[in-house]
Amino acid sequence: MISSFISRVSEHVGQEIELKGWVYNFRSSGKIFFLQFRDGTGRIQAVFSKAGTSEEVWNALQSLRIESSVVLAGKVKEDSRSPSGFELDGMSLRVIQLAPDDYPIGKKEHGPDFLLDNRHLWLRSEKQWAIQRVRNTIINATFAYLNEIGFIKIDSPILTPNACEGTTELFEIDYFEWTKAYLSQSGQLYLEAAVMSLGRCFDFGPVFRAEKSKTRRHLTEFWMMDAEAAFVEHEGNLAIQEGLILRIVKDVLTQNRKELAILERNIEALEKVQAPFVRMTHAEAVAKLRGMGSDIKDIDDLGADDETMLTKLYDRPIFVEKYPAVVKAFYMKRDPQDATRVLNADLLAPEGYGEIIGGSQREDDYDMLLARIKEHNLPVEPFNWYLDLRKYGSVPHSGFGYGLERITAWICGLEHIRETIPFPRLINRITP
Amino acid sequence: MISSFISRVSEHVGQEIELKGWVYNFRSSGKIFFLQFRDGTGRIQAVFSKAGTSEEVWNALQSLRIESSVVLAGKVKEDSRSPSGFELDGMSLRVIQLAPDDYPIGKKEHGPDFLLDNRHLWLRSEKQWAIQRVRNTIINATFAYLNEIGFIKIDSPILTPNACEGTTELFEIDYFEWTKAYLSQSGQLYLEAAVMSLGRCFDFGPVFRAEKSKTRRHLTEFWMMDAEAAFVEHEGNLAIQEGLILRIVKDVLTQNRKELAILERNIEALEKVQAPFVRMTHAEAVAKLRGMGSDIKDIDDLGADDETMLTKLYDRPIFVEKYPAVVKAFYMKRDPQDATRVLNADLLAPEGYGEIIGGSQREDDYDMLLARIKEHNLPVEPFNWYLDLRKYGSVPHSGFGYGLERITAWICGLEHIRETIPFPRLINRITP
Repeated sequence: MISSFISRVSEHVGQEIELKGWVYNFRSSGKIFFLQFRDGTGRIQAVFSKAGTSEEVWNALQSLRIESSVVLAGKVKEDSRSPSGFELDGMSLRVIQLAPDDYPIGKKEHGPDFLLDNRHLWLRSEKQWAIQRVRNTIINATFAYLNEIGFIKIDSPILTPNACEGTTELFEIDYFEWTKAYLSQSGQLYLEAAVMSLGRCFDFGPVFRAEKSKTRRHLTEFWMMDAEAAFVEHEGNLAIQEGLILRIVKDVLTQNRKELAILERNIEALEKVQAPFVRMTHAEAVAKLRGMGSDIKDIDDLGADDETMLTKLYDRPIFVEKYPAVVKAFYMKRDPQDATRVLNADLLAPEGYGEIIGGSQREDDYDMLLARIKEHNLPVEPFNWYLDLRKYGSVPHSGFGYGLERITAWICGLEHIRETIPFPRLINRITP
Repeated sequence: MISSFISRVSEHVGQEIELKGWVYNFRSSGKIFFLQFRDGTGRIQAVFSKAGTSEEVWNALQSLRIESSVVLAGKVKEDSRSPSGFELDGMSLRVIQLAPDDYPIGKKEHGPDFLLDNRHLWLRSEKQWAIQRVRNTIINATFAYLNEIGFIKIDSPILTPNACEGTTELFEIDYFEWTKAYLSQSGQLYLEAAVMSLGRCFDFGPVFRAEKSKTRRHLTEFWMMDAEAAFVEHEGNLAIQEGLILRIVKDVLTQNRKELAILERNIEALEKVQAPFVRMTHAEAVAKLRGMGSDIKDIDDLGADDETMLTKLYDRPIFVEKYPAVVKAFYMKRDPQDATRVLNADLLAPEGYGEIIGGSQREDDYDMLLARIKEHNLPVEPFNWYLDLRKYGSVPHSGFGYGLERITAWICGLEHIRETIPFPRLINRITP
């Protein structure tokens, strides 16, 4: 008997195979037993007839309960009615562990708190399984694309010193009783140091926001990818971001058709994500928003509602570039055409999802950067190492960061970001 | 003029190319100027002759200082004397930013504290550059190998609740004033939940130890990869680990010859890392160690010195398996042959490096696991979700974790682990 996985049944048509996994559902007509089975790589139905099954196996089938673990043997046949395209003619079944009859997650609707309390089991649900598989494809597409264009992974630190820009959204730690440490919100500044050695770098790790927001778009712990490149300027920065998002969408469309079907994702909307992305300046975005009735001011940052309105106008992602300097971070380089604006861009995902990437060209002039630090009322001393990067061989450089959970929510078409991360951490939740 | 990278000069022999990067050294004979240049992808020498160079460029060359950023143009030629195999006939040079004459890192020996204070610049040194490139290859080899055998990435949480096994080595956080949170030391328990949905999973992220150790093998923040697989037992677990280490060594030997040369790494020692790895039980290891004069007791864990002694006996990595249950974690499955021992293994790297992987088959029986939790005087309530995994469809499963910095130190042949991570965090250091 060939031991295999559901993901590989297409290689075994007409063969008898053995699969190990879990029962996720079943029904019986008295003479026919339909077993819904999953093994981590996919789902398949096995059909047993009472006539063709030993009494021992038939009895085992009758005693099954949802989420029991079993070893299943059967013959693979193609079945066009099945979502997987295949079915098993059931031959035998051995129970590894019979689950009790109280599996907490059922067909009925559960509230979000109940599901999150049972996240360790909820992850087994078909939709949650599909989301994690898509998330994995997004991670791999990111590594592949960045590696291909010369980026290497540089792990920026999580424990960081000074809370330069205020502590309200930072988690604080006592570091061996001699100082305070803070959990990182971005590795960007560290990547800027690394690219002066390695040219093109990215990090990809957890970041933390102690933000007292309880919205469908907020997590206190989430995964961020920051990319930074020496000798890349504003235009090149946008080109890299566009290429990355195109690659992610392409790989998910190629590798996760089944998962997208489970998620009932509108595939056409993803297929419309093509180059070139829509591009407008912040000033143009503000004019457009006012035309739609918004009261946004010339130097306002775009709010979530503004982003949603804009993205509903287009099928493709939108770069909104050149924001007013006063609403953006001190390290962004000013636009040489208009010193009140910066060479940044936020990338907004379509269908109302809003910001998935924020990036900018960085200020590379020592005196300018020092002036910005002072203008922002930041202490200079903690930035001395960062200023060094402008002192010893400064070069034009740019970078951007994406939020993995926001991208996953968009690609999967989800309402709530909390379903995109295996074990979400929210303002009121730190378990399981 | 073709704009290119040093990593691609072999494609441009005889062509004129432009490179952007930094001056890392130079010398002049009066008529010939030798420029040592790096661009993040590699290092190359450009040779300018006064006769063949414009006065403007010649003057720019004379004014250069170490770590200045420049745009360099030249014609690529093969040169067997050069470490890269190529050299540039210098044509022109444009200074982007002239560094001042006080670049802190020179040829002379610096103390470790000085170098760590200047980590943002030290990263540019040839050896540090090479280490980060090897580290990147190890990361990519890990993803590639695990993906190929069906593992997907599942990000386990960093912020975790209860300090089940004591708080002495945990960093503690006030979580929104209503509870305490602790920084994760391993994602294993969460991966065990994930594999019951997805079959085979791994995480790869920062973990934290508030350990008051100040040795060459300790960091307070380091990167750990945990892999976990349903339906994999002790033997299968070791096979996956062996395959992973072989893949890492092979990829580094294939992709990083130049970096290994910079690090003066003994290549032959790495080439001897072949299957099958040495394998011995803990009891056999103890007997061997006593034979070498150690006073290790039958139920002692192996110490760092013991590991070093053992690894010096063999060219290949060593699996030491089946440790006494009393020195290992509660979740390890007992050996059916000897209930005082567990189905675990530590993998020791050769050349004295010691433990790089720890793994085990996990206890999958509900009652046994509950008994172990109580035996270890752990509270049951925080483990209820973990016990659920044995209640609803428990299956045999195993996993292991590796420390990225320890593997990198071994592969690179380094004395100190602190050089393997971009921005090390030590008991007395949290900057830059």
